[in-house]
Amino acid sequence: MSAELEEIHEECGIFGVWGDPDASRLTYFGLHALQHRGQEGAGIVSNDHGHLISHRGLGLLTQVFHDESQIERLKGEAAIGHVRYATAGSSSFDNIQPFTFRFHDGDMSLCHNGNLTNCPSLRRKLENEGAIFRSNSDTEVLMHLIRRSPRSTLLDRLCDALNTVHGGFAYLLLTEHEMIGALDPNGFRPLTLGRMKNGAYVLSSETCALDVVGAERVRDIQPGEIVVVDNDGYRIVQYAPHTQLSICSMEFIYFARPDSDIYGVNVHSARKRMGSRLALESAVEADMVIGVPNSSLSAAAGYAEISGLPNEMGLVKNQYVARTFIQPTQELREQGVRMKLSAVRSVVSGKRVVVIDDSIVRGTTSRHIVQLLKEAGAAEVHMRISSPPLKYPCFYGIDISTTKELIAAKKSVEEIREFIGADSLAFLSLDGLVESIGLQGDAPYGGLCVAYFNGDYPTALDDYEADFLASLPSEDCERLAHFAECNSEYVGNEFHSSIVSHHARRALRVDS
Amino acid sequence: MSAELEEIHEECGIFGVWGDPDASRLTYFGLHALQHRGQEGAGIVSNDHGHLISHRGLGLLTQVFHDESQIERLKGEAAIGHVRYATAGSSSFDNIQPFTFRFHDGDMSLCHNGNLTNCPSLRRKLENEGAIFRSNSDTEVLMHLIRRSPRSTLLDRLCDALNTVHGGFAYLLLTEHEMIGALDPNGFRPLTLGRMKNGAYVLSSETCALDVVGAERVRDIQPGEIVVVDNDGYRIVQYAPHTQLSICSMEFIYFARPDSDIYGVNVHSARKRMGSRLALESAVEADMVIGVPNSSLSAAAGYAEISGLPNEMGLVKNQYVARTFIQPTQELREQGVRMKLSAVRSVVSGKRVVVIDDSIVRGTTSRHIVQLLKEAGAAEVHMRISSPPLKYPCFYGIDISTTKELIAAKKSVEEIREFIGADSLAFLSLDGLVESIGLQGDAPYGGLCVAYFNGDYPTALDDYEADFLASLPSEDCERLAHFAECNSEYVGNEFHSSIVSHHARRALRVDS
Amino acid sequence: MSAELEEIHEECGIFGVWGDPDASRLTYFGLHALQHRGQEGAGIVSNDHGHLISHRGLGLLTQVFHDESQIERLKGEAAIGHVRYATAGSSSFDNIQPFTFRFHDGDMSLCHNGNLTNCPSLRRKLENEGAIFRSNSDTEVLMHLIRRSPRSTLLDRLCDALNTVHGGFAYLLLTEHEMIGALDPNGFRPLTLGRMKNGAYVLSSETCALDVVGAERVRDIQPGEIVVVDNDGYRIVQYAPHTQLSICSMEFIYFARPDSDIYGVNVHSARKRMGSRLALESAVEADMVIGVPNSSLSAAAGYAEISGLPNEMGLVKNQYVARTFIQPTQELREQGVRMKLSAVRSVVSGKRVVVIDDSIVRGTTSRHIVQLLKEAGAAEVHMRISSPPLKYPCFYGIDISTTKELIAAKKSVEEIREFIGADSLAFLSLDGLVESIGLQGDAPYGGLCVAYFNGDYPTALDDYEADFLASLPSEDCERLAHFAECNSEYVGNEFHSSIVSHHARRALRVDS
Amino acid sequence: MSAELEEIHEECGIFGVWGDPDASRLTYFGLHALQHRGQEGAGIVSNDHGHLISHRGLGLLTQVFHDESQIERLKGEAAIGHVRYATAGSSSFDNIQPFTFRFHDGDMSLCHNGNLTNCPSLRRKLENEGAIFRSNSDTEVLMHLIRRSPRSTLLDRLCDALNTVHGGFAYLLLTEHEMIGALDPNGFRPLTLGRMKNGAYVLSSETCALDVVGAERVRDIQPGEIVVVDNDGYRIVQYAPHTQLSICSMEFIYFARPDSDIYGVNVHSARKRMGSRLALESAVEADMVIGVPNSSLSAAAGYAEISGLPNEMGLVKNQYVARTFIQPTQELREQGVRMKLSAVRSVVSGKRVVVIDDSIVRGTTSRHIVQLLKEAGAAEVHMRISSPPLKYPCFYGIDISTTKELIAAKKSVEEIREFIGADSLAFLSLDGLVESIGLQGDAPYGGLCVAYFNGDYPTALDDYEADFLASLPSEDCERLAHFAECNSEYVGNEFHSSIVSHHARRALRVDS
Repeated sequence: MSAELEEIHEECGIFGVWGDPDASRLTYFGLHALQHRGQEGAGIVSNDHGHLISHRGLGLLTQVFHDESQIERLKGEAAIGHVRYATAGSSSFDNIQPFTFRFHDGDMSLCHNGNLTNCPSLRRKLENEGAIFRSNSDTEVLMHLIRRSPRSTLLDRLCDALNTVHGGFAYLLLTEHEMIGALDPNGFRPLTLGRMKNGAYVLSSETCALDVVGAERVRDIQPGEIVVVDNDGYRIVQYAPHTQLSICSMEFIYFARPDSDIYGVNVHSARKRMGSRLALESAVEADMVIGVPNSSLSAAAGYAEISGLPNEMGLVKNQYVARTFIQPTQELREQGVRMKLSAVRSVVSGKRVVVIDDSIVRGTTSRHIVQLLKEAGAAEVHMRISSPPLKYPCFYGIDISTTKELIAAKKSVEEIREFIGADSLAFLSLDGLVESIGLQGDAPYGGLCVAYFNGDYPTALDDYEADFLASLPSEDCERLAHFAECNSEYVGNEFHSSIVSHHARRALRVDS
Repeated sequence: MSAELEEIHEECGIFGVWGDPDASRLTYFGLHALQHRGQEGAGIVSNDHGHLISHRGLGLLTQVFHDESQIERLKGEAAIGHVRYATAGSSSFDNIQPFTFRFHDGDMSLCHNGNLTNCPSLRRKLENEGAIFRSNSDTEVLMHLIRRSPRSTLLDRLCDALNTVHGGFAYLLLTEHEMIGALDPNGFRPLTLGRMKNGAYVLSSETCALDVVGAERVRDIQPGEIVVVDNDGYRIVQYAPHTQLSICSMEFIYFARPDSDIYGVNVHSARKRMGSRLALESAVEADMVIGVPNSSLSAAAGYAEISGLPNEMGLVKNQYVARTFIQPTQELREQGVRMKLSAVRSVVSGKRVVVIDDSIVRGTTSRHIVQLLKEAGAAEVHMRISSPPLKYPCFYGIDISTTKELIAAKKSVEEIREFIGADSLAFLSLDGLVESIGLQGDAPYGGLCVAYFNGDYPTALDDYEADFLASLPSEDCERLAHFAECNSEYVGNEFHSSIVSHHARRALRVDS
Repeated sequence: MSAELEEIHEECGIFGVWGDPDASRLTYFGLHALQHRGQEGAGIVSNDHGHLISHRGLGLLTQVFHDESQIERLKGEAAIGHVRYATAGSSSFDNIQPFTFRFHDGDMSLCHNGNLTNCPSLRRKLENEGAIFRSNSDTEVLMHLIRRSPRSTLLDRLCDALNTVHGGFAYLLLTEHEMIGALDPNGFRPLTLGRMKNGAYVLSSETCALDVVGAERVRDIQPGEIVVVDNDGYRIVQYAPHTQLSICSMEFIYFARPDSDIYGVNVHSARKRMGSRLALESAVEADMVIGVPNSSLSAAAGYAEISGLPNEMGLVKNQYVARTFIQPTQELREQGVRMKLSAVRSVVSGKRVVVIDDSIVRGTTSRHIVQLLKEAGAAEVHMRISSPPLKYPCFYGIDISTTKELIAAKKSVEEIREFIGADSLAFLSLDGLVESIGLQGDAPYGGLCVAYFNGDYPTALDDYEADFLASLPSEDCERLAHFAECNSEYVGNEFHSSIVSHHARRALRVDS
Repeated sequence: MSAELEEIHEECGIFGVWGDPDASRLTYFGLHALQHRGQEGAGIVSNDHGHLISHRGLGLLTQVFHDESQIERLKGEAAIGHVRYATAGSSSFDNIQPFTFRFHDGDMSLCHNGNLTNCPSLRRKLENEGAIFRSNSDTEVLMHLIRRSPRSTLLDRLCDALNTVHGGFAYLLLTEHEMIGALDPNGFRPLTLGRMKNGAYVLSSETCALDVVGAERVRDIQPGEIVVVDNDGYRIVQYAPHTQLSICSMEFIYFARPDSDIYGVNVHSARKRMGSRLALESAVEADMVIGVPNSSLSAAAGYAEISGLPNEMGLVKNQYVARTFIQPTQELREQGVRMKLSAVRSVVSGKRVVVIDDSIVRGTTSRHIVQLLKEAGAAEVHMRISSPPLKYPCFYGIDISTTKELIAAKKSVEEIREFIGADSLAFLSLDGLVESIGLQGDAPYGGLCVAYFNGDYPTALDDYEADFLASLPSEDCERLAHFAECNSEYVGNEFHSSIVSHHARRALRVDS
């Protein structure tokens, strides 16, 4: 889909095992099932009786681990691993996780999925106190905070540290004696605990990786929880004074694998319901429905069922796209050479087609798809998007950091339609999205974060706030004020915040 | 699908360009679109003013060409390339095509998709005359025959050679002055001519690769045709005295990409019709339809439309499966660790599911799929196969060379059902297959080869015949005699043949 | 020679450039000339207008930089680089330098040749204050100290840090605005400043790398000096209150390249003088002199000249030994298969040979050499070593950290002779060594560190002292007491020290 | 030395083992000792009960075999291998040997060191008979001839083939049942048989590789001999009617490793005698002798001994030069950046130096060396070359194929001296060379080929003759006529030849 093709990415997938002699190999398979969450780099660290052994590298997991000996070297009965998403600027080895730290009292490894909203100021503060940083990653910040906590146990120090960082995060931590997972107080990112038949425990970003290693789901980690796995089993610690579920709705829309369940909701089924709802909200006379492969196939099936239109394969994606180093020249691009997506002339020629896509980011991919279909002879192209218009950036771990790149932040639906050249265009309503996903929580939006659509951020934006406000048109600022107001009573947090969302206020702070 | 997962493979894809300054780069993109036809190895040869430059290697195209400089080295305005399928035994560099030959009168390169039925005896005969062979491939045989022809022009020599080899083949040949394609008299394998906007010509195994490089289809190469492309354009030569279309039906069933058209029939659409017909032939009461990804999704959509059942994603395939070097240990396999396919518990749990797959080869994959779905809680699993039972080997380029490995050669449908553990099992009828594909030819089966299903081979089997007959149960031999009878009048062929199929007799020889 | 073959290694080579548009390429060539100082890993960091870009990897420089694009990516007019020596245990990517640090006030890179004697206690102290470590390397310690200094300028902070660390070190530091080199107060490791024709400045471990990049030597960096290179040229800062030259004598004996000059003394010439002196001290009747290639060829030439014996090539070293991954099996070793060194039968057969080697570490290589020569028919083998017996470990950067592995710590010369099977054995005297090298300083031993031979360490041993003393036989402790005595007046250093050598006391502290 | 630095190369090294379970591993070690004979590519073929398994690749042996599994795959008790020299044009995978051929009656592998003088016409003739060629190599020609021989046994066919090819060659052939070596009738290239302690036999280009695998030399293969090794031991067959030893003198001058013996003469010792003789022939007043590393060190030792001058290390070669992909830009070269050779200022400054080099090819390297030494302050540079001036190309396996590139073909010694900028220049006399090497044969020049120095080719030049004669100045043609005259009675050879050298006539044909 568009988001996939325009390379808007999740920040990473994490996976860990405690208690299996094949821990690093299992971590490899777990990460393999999470490869869609990051293709820039990968790493695994194993725990060989307290000596943590690491192997990391740039590229796909199969490129980083291209030799049996690389797995065999990672001895031990516990391991954690990470796949990292691709961005142009930071494709540096130094940012590939897990990070391993060597202390006189033992090695520690740490990896991370998410984004901290107060990372810049925390880094600045830590640097002023003498801290050094080897990467641009948020991950080192947490380790600094852990080591600087005055408390005595690792768990207490970790609680201190987790209460200092803000934003979206799922952490995995490995030491000689335990594997620890931790989730932010809003649960922006998914994290699940599973158990294998032999009693080993597994932590994973998505349930699809549990299935791959034959583990059963024990429980989803809840907002503000720490899970400690050691030789005595697992235990849950609630470290955050206030929590409220705001799981990223984009996980349902396109990040997560369709066979994953998040808080009990299957991703494929949610997408299919989005497609069905979209058919109800924005019906159009046409000859067929086409899903943009791979992530919009579920929604297309839903649209087809409700509309009664046949569900056709009018667009085909090359299943071998990963990481080619050979690129078309500009001339070849102009000649029409393209590698990822093809329209199927004999399917669409002369037909009125409804194209289902999961999102529109910059609009260029949608325009490309419409053009492909028209060149292949489609009589009409009706674009239907199974989520609302993306208008606001994400600060919790999705790589949309400014509104500038979002076409819906600047253009009306009619203007977008014109830009992409479609005969009609419609988006799923926000209510439609929330109801299609159907989380049963009593938190706002049923427990979803939908800030990219309406600006209602579940937390203060901390270091990002000033720039964000400056980027908004004035009328939007006013509208956001409906959600947000200044709140000086923020608990346990020394950093200033001036935007507090409607539901953040209600849930996290109203009691105060 | 089963065939895909059990690694029954096509023998290769071929692609060539004449007349573009980016010829080798375009060939790369063309091969990239044909990667599904072979993952063992790949190679490209370019024509730099008569000096043919080669780069070949083991693995995926992206692994063989992992560096811009590897494409840049392949200078020239013409190129041909090849992707090769994977088998355990022969993963030798020496077999990777195209092969390049160095003569005092110029370099020549050659590559090949298919299988010759008289290759062993031709090799023996050539060796007795002093020929030397660097590979196990059929490809060198043709070059020997070309060079040994007493005629004077390359085209005449090529005609001689092509009339000597039997079986299924599509060849690409590159010299300083021309690019030549050639197809066997039955057209077992597909080959298409396209033209780019700048006038360059393209030859490709499938039309999907034409789309990728922005070429328009000019014509499908017909059985027994040679196409010569040079600086004056292209011309067609008919070299075979007798021809009759018998295009491999497995191309439609699962080899070809869904966006390819073969003799005017779109592959996706054909598959969808197979699924629809299957729903009519073998309806069953159920809650949902599931396609085995990726190749059975079209058939599943067809089944769902006709049956009125919802089309769900109950099985998910990891899209990053290609070429991992890390494998589960036997212990991990027993613990349920698996990398390719997952069942989606929350979709199938408690449901009666119809699973659409395109074929059953050994039956082990089908059994695995049924087991996955039952473990995920499916109440009933009804397996529906969108092609007839596979009972006979192929000698024209598909890697099924003995009946031993085919479960349907030994077991009844009910026995297969029991083996795979499904609640019911049905296959598409042969008529259903032929009518669903819907080729409009007047050749037997509308121009399809369906020998894997009924033993009606369109040609004599030459060197393979004796072993094949020995492998059959006696009653089957009698039944095949209905198709085949001895024919000593075979034209222009010094090799003995004793099986001549029903339609081979009718079309190729009866007139003689 | 023995040391080379037994893989006793220097800890690294460093090289940097300021002011040339080809800075990273020049650094590559500089490191290439320093490859003999470390083969485990290599890295280069360039300064692209303050953004420091890094490329590091395991293996030889040619393996780490196997592609032009890897150098081209390292843009900028300044760069520093490092080659790292090989040890079995720590061949981890995380230890490969230069290390790069990312601060809000700019990036910094740091690399290091040497060893700190108070590193463990400094790490412990820093960790107790919250510092985190990503490696086992001493290098991170200095960066922590720099960033924790309360002073305001980088230079002041660096001076603080350098006055806190003890031992042997040569550091290179790169920031947006300057390249800085620093040497320990004893100058254990060499460091030289050069200037290129275009005015660019170069810092290098050895002068041989200056020659390779066409730079002229400006000056050797002196003990306790910092050299700051920026766009205004270079300036020297003396940061240490007390200094005394104790350059590592092993640099002359076998580490440094023969074409390097150290404090004005050419290494080849020094070695030749060692050989000449050895001939005077330990003459023997023989037919020829043989040098163990490559590092003992100079000494052999000197021995031959004085003794009047012909200098023959009786031992040949394979010049392609670097980093093979294929090893002989134990069976093959027993059959006599060997890869590095061959004896030349037709040269040595029936002859009385004097073999010149630079050192004996464990004795196993010497025994192997004697055996090779005897098997090749040598009538007598007289081993002559161009340095005194190695009896004590080094704590300043050479990989001999315990006395246990040193045969001369446990055996007399006669016992060693017996062990290696030579007909006679003699070592160069300590006076002979000092006079052969011929440094003109008034420091003890002319400015050399000769502690491996006599235990007279130029500094306190700090964290290594307790284990070292425990490892000594009691009579040796007494003898060392002749050199060392307790000194509580150590200036500006909070760490306890109880061994202070004879000359350390005299020079560094007595005045205080 | 110059030849080494100017990359005038030998064509390859060969090595084989019969009768050891570690055959491929031993072949690896043997080739490792022959790496100096070729760095472009390498390959090994093993005999696994008649199935020949091959691994070949571009680059150094350590690059081609970078993984244990690559050797382990090459199972079997026999193996042959090849290292190939580097040239710009033909660095194609297709030319890397051994070549493996697949026949119905068994696999065969073949590799080759040398050059055939009648290869072009043989290829042409074979092609006219239908032969096909996959490479530019001479090696395929022999296999064609073997397979086309009408005789019945492999040995008879091989004799036929060897009597058809002309020029310099050493072949290794591997089949299921035997390993065969063969040498041309002049023995241009060296080949030796050795035996391991366990009874396995070894064939090697040089004896240095025997030493490395612990094998004892059994005998040098003589001109015109075939050696057949099988499970019954070895036997020698003389296939050539006329033979006369003309071993390449360049093997002694610089190709072979100093620890090798050729026909009983140690290479180092021969070189040392050349240096001694040179000192006698061309003494000069000077302060020191310097050998150009590595290949002229032996000659320098000889010169020093006779002249009484000290032998100094005034030039140092980087021991890690192999195969870097990063090159200095033109600007950097002009700034004096260089990677291979350094002059040692503190050794040569102010001194009169005699530089010993083994040969002058184009003169550019000698000029570079003189310049390096003068820039380093040498007062006088006297160049002494331990071989006569190179004036004529080689057609038997050394990569000097035209006289154009040879400075001595066009300039007098004084003109060369001027070109290279030396203060004096002298070459060893031809008599001096022949006597220094000291082969005891009664063949012309003691059994050496010295054609590069005087044009007296030991055989007809066949296909190369016309171009060679055309390239000569007329007076030279007349002088060569002293050696050569037309001979129409050439035995058993259908190809025309018009130059027959003095000694070729005398020895090979005079009887006719």
